[in-house]
Amino acid sequence: MSKFIVIGERIHCISPVIREAMANRDPEPILKRAKDQIAQGAVYLDVNIGPAGKDGEELMQWAVKLIQEECDNIPLCLDTVNTKAIEAGIKVHNNSRGKPIVNSADAGDRISNIDLAAANDAICIALCSAAGIPADNDERMGYCQTMLERGMEHGMDPEDIWFDPLFLVVKGMQDKQMEVLDFIKMLSDMGLSSSGGLSNISNMMPHHVRPVMDSAMLAMAMYCGLTSAIVNPGDLRLMETLRSCDIIRNNTLYADSYLDI
Amino acid sequence: MSKFIVIGERIHCISPVIREAMANRDPEPILKRAKDQIAQGAVYLDVNIGPAGKDGEELMQWAVKLIQEECDNIPLCLDTVNTKAIEAGIKVHNNSRGKPIVNSADAGDRISNIDLAAANDAICIALCSAAGIPADNDERMGYCQTMLERGMEHGMDPEDIWFDPLFLVVKGMQDKQMEVLDFIKMLSDMGLSSSGGLSNISNMMPHHVRPVMDSAMLAMAMYCGLTSAIVNPGDLRLMETLRSCDIIRNNTLYADSYLDI
Repeated sequence: MSKFIVIGERIHCISPVIREAMANRDPEPILKRAKDQIAQGAVYLDVNIGPAGKDGEELMQWAVKLIQEECDNIPLCLDTVNTKAIEAGIKVHNNSRGKPIVNSADAGDRISNIDLAAANDAICIALCSAAGIPADNDERMGYCQTMLERGMEHGMDPEDIWFDPLFLVVKGMQDKQMEVLDFIKMLSDMGLSSSGGLSNISNMMPHHVRPVMDSAMLAMAMYCGLTSAIVNPGDLRLMETLRSCDIIRNNTLYADSYLDI
Repeated sequence: MSKFIVIGERIHCISPVIREAMANRDPEPILKRAKDQIAQGAVYLDVNIGPAGKDGEELMQWAVKLIQEECDNIPLCLDTVNTKAIEAGIKVHNNSRGKPIVNSADAGDRISNIDLAAANDAICIALCSAAGIPADNDERMGYCQTMLERGMEHGMDPEDIWFDPLFLVVKGMQDKQMEVLDFIKMLSDMGLSSSGGLSNISNMMPHHVRPVMDSAMLAMAMYCGLTSAIVNPGDLRLMETLRSCDIIRNNTLYADSYLDI
């Protein structure tokens, strides 16, 4: 087993600071978040530039070069619905520490992002959904199979497709949570990798509750074999949980200092 | 699904305060720990009187009557190797809020504690071990079957046997943790109840690490279907995790205030 892969979520245009920095091509706010997340344990950084219809290609290339040059070529997760911007980002991505991640494909309109990842030797996050929320795990597994075949037809190594079970918000879909976890276990039992936006589960919960709920869900998902997630590495409770589960899963060797490293 | 059952572990003769109170038949320290644990969310209280070879029967009866009379007949988990003391405790136990628990039987020398539970309509914690640590889950399951058959032969309802997988210390048995969790899942898939001394996993770890490690393990075990555990309900992080997992498992309905109740 290998260690759980933390993809830092905090370079995201939904943040006013980051949106403004992206608009003005202002390096400092972006680099600060990059360095903070790396210090907190991120091994990939998500770079979400939003739809970026106008200047997405140039913006993504600017962000990729900026972050990698200043952060020892940390590998990046290229996150936008603008496929051309992802492709442009891949072209300038330095793969010395890891392949870029295409975030994301699905089994519907965005299935061609798998082809993009395949053509560029990238990893692809593959959302097990086509339009809307899958009704059950049979539907999820159908989408998984479709995307797995698509990737393999295009020469991808199955381990480069990271299947996203689609984490669902507890407030409104409480009765669906175990099913999502069971699906992660199905993926793991098939030897497949997984990822996703775990903190979606605690959307609309009180601020102090979210790290508690997210940590509980993460531990349950890590028993099931979740191999990575897009999370806030500044969430100390979540990161402590993650490191503890890596010990329990025997992914890393225990030391009394394991929470500090 | 029903809510996870918290058995409070803090009335234990290993604590000098409790040992002295038991020796002197001093109610206050015992009642304080009982009331604290109930306020923190315990629904059973473990009463560990140690080997108590000399006056175990009288001591257990004193403790059972004391705690139940002052704590609205909270049901108790009678914890000692002195079988006669357990039997004496059962005789005076008020079952209005739940059956007493015999803690514990195993598949070796203590298998007759199952007969004791059966004869007295009590619950029995059944350690899936005979002598020493089971080598693997096949061995655990063999012991489980032996004890299940023994209980059923004596007329027990299978749901009154709470199988203990035997939680193992991470420091020294790190590579065995997932196997213990898998065994809990096997029990759950068979429709069986489970319990155990979960915090054993973090024995010998630094003080600040233990609640972190225990909480991660508890969440993983609750995905697997663990139905109860003997824990310290004063461990806030553990109790928050437990409540969150009860939400994720859909055992209790979510409310924004769920951590406070």
